[in-house]
Amino acid sequence: MKIVILIFDNYTALDIIGPYEVLSKLPNAKVYLAGLERREYKDSHGLRISADYSINEITVADILLIPGGFGIDELLKNNEIIEWIQQIDHSTQWTVSVCSGSLLLAQAGLLNGKECTTHWRRKDQLRNYNVKVKDERYLQDGKIITSAGVSAGIDMALYLVSKIADDQTAKMIQLAIEYDPKPPFDCGSPDKLPKEMIEKLKNK
Amino acid sequence: MKIVILIFDNYTALDIIGPYEVLSKLPNAKVYLAGLERREYKDSHGLRISADYSINEITVADILLIPGGFGIDELLKNNEIIEWIQQIDHSTQWTVSVCSGSLLLAQAGLLNGKECTTHWRRKDQLRNYNVKVKDERYLQDGKIITSAGVSAGIDMALYLVSKIADDQTAKMIQLAIEYDPKPPFDCGSPDKLPKEMIEKLKNK
Repeated sequence: MKIVILIFDNYTALDIIGPYEVLSKLPNAKVYLAGLERREYKDSHGLRISADYSINEITVADILLIPGGFGIDELLKNNEIIEWIQQIDHSTQWTVSVCSGSLLLAQAGLLNGKECTTHWRRKDQLRNYNVKVKDERYLQDGKIITSAGVSAGIDMALYLVSKIADDQTAKMIQLAIEYDPKPPFDCGSPDKLPKEMIEKLKNK
Repeated sequence: MKIVILIFDNYTALDIIGPYEVLSKLPNAKVYLAGLERREYKDSHGLRISADYSINEITVADILLIPGGFGIDELLKNNEIIEWIQQIDHSTQWTVSVCSGSLLLAQAGLLNGKECTTHWRRKDQLRNYNVKVKDERYLQDGKIITSAGVSAGIDMALYLVSKIADDQTAKMIQLAIEYDPKPPFDCGSPDKLPKEMIEKLKNK
């Protein structure tokens, strides 16, 4: 199984590595990181992850995963990337996104008329497309799965493993990464915090 | 605030990137990835993350974070790394680990007589040291915080932010990474799965 993750400058590292850690443990799967060029890409804080391939070297995939990050806005105007996503999607069993990565799927027309989700801070932007934006941790519509912000990619990837393999395999991977979350606060979703705090964060 | 994360071959990517995504958002903080040499390091599946510095270039840190992974066993025999950890620890406000990273802290003598934790699969190995191994998601003993396996580093890092800054800052970061976990299964800890399954995973 060929799993292709797009990488670009100003990605959010956990958008990539959350699902990567889960999907790379799928039996008989190999993850390919693909960027516009075969080089290092920096996240917004300077972390450097290397692309194994340029997108020109990747013509098919079983799973295509689009992560998010501030760099997404630049990519929305990049026809080479948009056309590549459209082309790869023809071959995929699953096309999935984490966080603001859903905007790129929407821009490529792959979410037309579909239910989808994204980072809470990006929902208004996603509503500009012909889509039905929902408040879900992750959401499947046909072969497309979109996820909420950043850390939601872990939940989505475990769900995806349960669909590709079976529940048993997903559970084994969940245990391998000891994903028994106990966040110190119950505030990971905007409905769980005061409105002033949300507005403050929105304007950052 | 200078946050130093050790990187080495055969690290577990999420051990690094979970806490990285949280700690890099701490105001006035900078994360430094340091390896034995200044080069790319591969995880067990071939993902390449670059070290910004060699450990010789880092002589002090406010926070030292040791991630885990299969590569830890090799490092336990590496005196250069052990001595560097001991030296850096003299300068830190916090010395923390994720997953099997706690073994390296134990090998450096930093957990002597302390309560600590690690990945469930590594607990027997950690018990060989003069430490009190506990079943916790993360555990603070003085300035040391150790975490359970892989994904536990996210919870630990949010807790650490609440201690360094305040609860408000930790909550804002938790919301920024939309960490409102909803794993598809309730099986992220070995006490939540049948014993046969645990044994199967232990022998892998």
